[in-house]
Amino acid sequence: MSKPPHVVIVGGGFAGLYCARKLRGAPVRISLIDRRNFHLFQPLLYQVATASLSPADIASPIRTVLRKQGNAQVWMGEVKKVDRDRREIVLADGSRVHYDYLVLATGVTHSYFGNDEWAGHAPGLKTVDDATEIRRRFLLAFEAAEREADPEARRRLLTFVIVGAGPTGVELAGAMAEIARQVMPMDFRAIDTTTTRILLLEGVDRVLPTYPPELSRKAQSHLEALGVEVRTNARVTEIGNEHVAIGEERIEAGNTFWAAGVAASEVGATLGAKLDEAGRVRVEPDGSLPGSPEVFVVGDLANLPQEDGSPVPGVAPAAIQMGKHAARMILRDLEGDAREPFRYVDKGDLATIGRAAAVARLGRVKLSGFIAWFIWVVVHILYLIGFRNRALVMLQWAWAYLTYQRGIRLITGDRQVELYRAREIEE
Amino acid sequence: MSKPPHVVIVGGGFAGLYCARKLRGAPVRISLIDRRNFHLFQPLLYQVATASLSPADIASPIRTVLRKQGNAQVWMGEVKKVDRDRREIVLADGSRVHYDYLVLATGVTHSYFGNDEWAGHAPGLKTVDDATEIRRRFLLAFEAAEREADPEARRRLLTFVIVGAGPTGVELAGAMAEIARQVMPMDFRAIDTTTTRILLLEGVDRVLPTYPPELSRKAQSHLEALGVEVRTNARVTEIGNEHVAIGEERIEAGNTFWAAGVAASEVGATLGAKLDEAGRVRVEPDGSLPGSPEVFVVGDLANLPQEDGSPVPGVAPAAIQMGKHAARMILRDLEGDAREPFRYVDKGDLATIGRAAAVARLGRVKLSGFIAWFIWVVVHILYLIGFRNRALVMLQWAWAYLTYQRGIRLITGDRQVELYRAREIEE
Repeated sequence: MSKPPHVVIVGGGFAGLYCARKLRGAPVRISLIDRRNFHLFQPLLYQVATASLSPADIASPIRTVLRKQGNAQVWMGEVKKVDRDRREIVLADGSRVHYDYLVLATGVTHSYFGNDEWAGHAPGLKTVDDATEIRRRFLLAFEAAEREADPEARRRLLTFVIVGAGPTGVELAGAMAEIARQVMPMDFRAIDTTTTRILLLEGVDRVLPTYPPELSRKAQSHLEALGVEVRTNARVTEIGNEHVAIGEERIEAGNTFWAAGVAASEVGATLGAKLDEAGRVRVEPDGSLPGSPEVFVVGDLANLPQEDGSPVPGVAPAAIQMGKHAARMILRDLEGDAREPFRYVDKGDLATIGRAAAVARLGRVKLSGFIAWFIWVVVHILYLIGFRNRALVMLQWAWAYLTYQRGIRLITGDRQVELYRAREIEE
Repeated sequence: MSKPPHVVIVGGGFAGLYCARKLRGAPVRISLIDRRNFHLFQPLLYQVATASLSPADIASPIRTVLRKQGNAQVWMGEVKKVDRDRREIVLADGSRVHYDYLVLATGVTHSYFGNDEWAGHAPGLKTVDDATEIRRRFLLAFEAAEREADPEARRRLLTFVIVGAGPTGVELAGAMAEIARQVMPMDFRAIDTTTTRILLLEGVDRVLPTYPPELSRKAQSHLEALGVEVRTNARVTEIGNEHVAIGEERIEAGNTFWAAGVAASEVGATLGAKLDEAGRVRVEPDGSLPGSPEVFVVGDLANLPQEDGSPVPGVAPAAIQMGKHAARMILRDLEGDAREPFRYVDKGDLATIGRAAAVARLGRVKLSGFIAWFIWVVVHILYLIGFRNRALVMLQWAWAYLTYQRGIRLITGDRQVELYRAREIEE
């Protein structure tokens, strides 16, 4: 009997991990390769950036998730290239791995729309390290402002710009406004943290552009109630160390965070396949590469057209479904059955705005306010419990919400407070 | 009426923070200055390094701890120098702060006994960043070993050396051995993590040299039961990237961790006072500086002789007591009362060895095994609850112990797996 086929899955995000789990017990040998040793529950990453959760609360070691799945191996490594002719992937260290099936699920990274020099001034939010860096900068600004004597510099330190009002930008802005206005005031003596400015800039005419317009309006008014200054039709033309420009207008801001654009991860381009304008790989209706049925591209990296022509959206539920679909197609191949096109089951959209408000679309039903927030909590509790069996995380989270605590307010890393003109500490 | 006196406390560790809290409601203005924005419960730092707790579980923002103490301000900054003549401290940014009373509580850092080039090869464990770096290196070694084809290189990757068998070294070694032998085996396919070698090197003739010899023997046998190789009378003469030398003997080890020596933080030397051989400041029996009664040095930075001539030990309870004592002496000054010498109340020593064993000295009573471990847990629960009001941390911790989980197994930071010769992933 010949060896079972080798299924190489690159990327341990939603798409890759659910593909591997779907192949549990199947007559295949699975190698899941990721640059990181953990799977990240990215929808809650903004809560790490805003000091509500620790990184470990939303991350699980991939090999622990797959520990009881005997047909799966996990490898930590960075895939640089796919060699379709030889059916091999090439890792950063030069080693090559042969595959019978390849499931490419490396996702997306930030895109600064060709302005890569903005990256240092405006960190984005894709990884745990991104999140702790945003947390560091956000918290450090208040520490520096507390010691800053120059009112203009202090004002600048307490001004934060978030570029992009998709779900990540909206959630970041809401959480930051809440911390500044509700959690921090008692902690500081020299500054009034309720004067903190949080500006949320969006290039098009409304926040949450992929949501129904009605929910965009609700989200904007929730944000404004929290004190966020929402600016739509505001295209950023420049980002410096301490300012953001929108055409002629210059906003003095000590910190800018990037939640605007994404670009496909670079390994997609090495497939030699057709890419869309965002670098995503154009795939067949079954999720495979044209001309290479043994290669699947799933998750955010894929551009898979739906019946109306628009691509499947880059959200976690779609990634999970695509990952599982690729697994099913591999199983059908092994059984000699024909492939089937992928159909995205759109269950809706959910975005939180601060502590007890959200907007939700469930099929055609649109909800906002506390009820939407409650649904959001339940969905995330169910996911986290099902996935990690760690109900305690949710307890801790509920506790933080109930008590307005933000326990994770740690400034780690080596860089320290930089001041313009230090306030006399004694005054 | 004149302004209340300005008490500047440098350092928000046990000594500094308890000094500030003791002055609650007192007619003084307190400025607590720390390089970090959080107080760290250092006795549990080894649990961060060994993936049992998140940094936030053992850290609290200093300004939150003191938020309701109206006479206290908190500043983030690094103190470089004390100018006793002008009664000023000088910060890294050049700003100067006048004090009426100074309480210097900046603690200690690692000392490589003059071999500073060892620092890069053998990180120590004093800060949160140290702990996540040790965690990163420890976990990464297993990931690299899983992909390593060369048996010798794999053996080296799975060999860890801990230098120094004080409480930190003992606790690190015990926890690391447990993870390798009890938590990880199921997660790996190519390597057998139970073959991991953990070597604990101690320069003198027994582990826990400051404990009663009877407990040193118990601790060593607990460690050996967990699979730790304990080497006493083993003085390290060289540490390289992948080896440690003890005289002529060379140990091939992918990772070395430093738990051996401490040296006083450098600001102590700027006092112009007498220092001991470890750089600690020699103080009067009341904790103040000879010739400068308005300057107190407390905690690990101080060398305060007890009645038998030996200095007060560098442990958390002593730091807490010294911090409170300095506060009391300031209050007595304000009342016109005479100062009193500091008397250390030695309640005992506690060190854990793995999941359910410890050694304890409570006054003259010596305990070991599960009962000592239980006492250790209760002491730490009481401390953490009293201090942080976060019983959930303890729940999470108890959960991790009960279920053998190590949930915090995240490899963060930019450096990736480095391999000698990559195993064929498919094999």
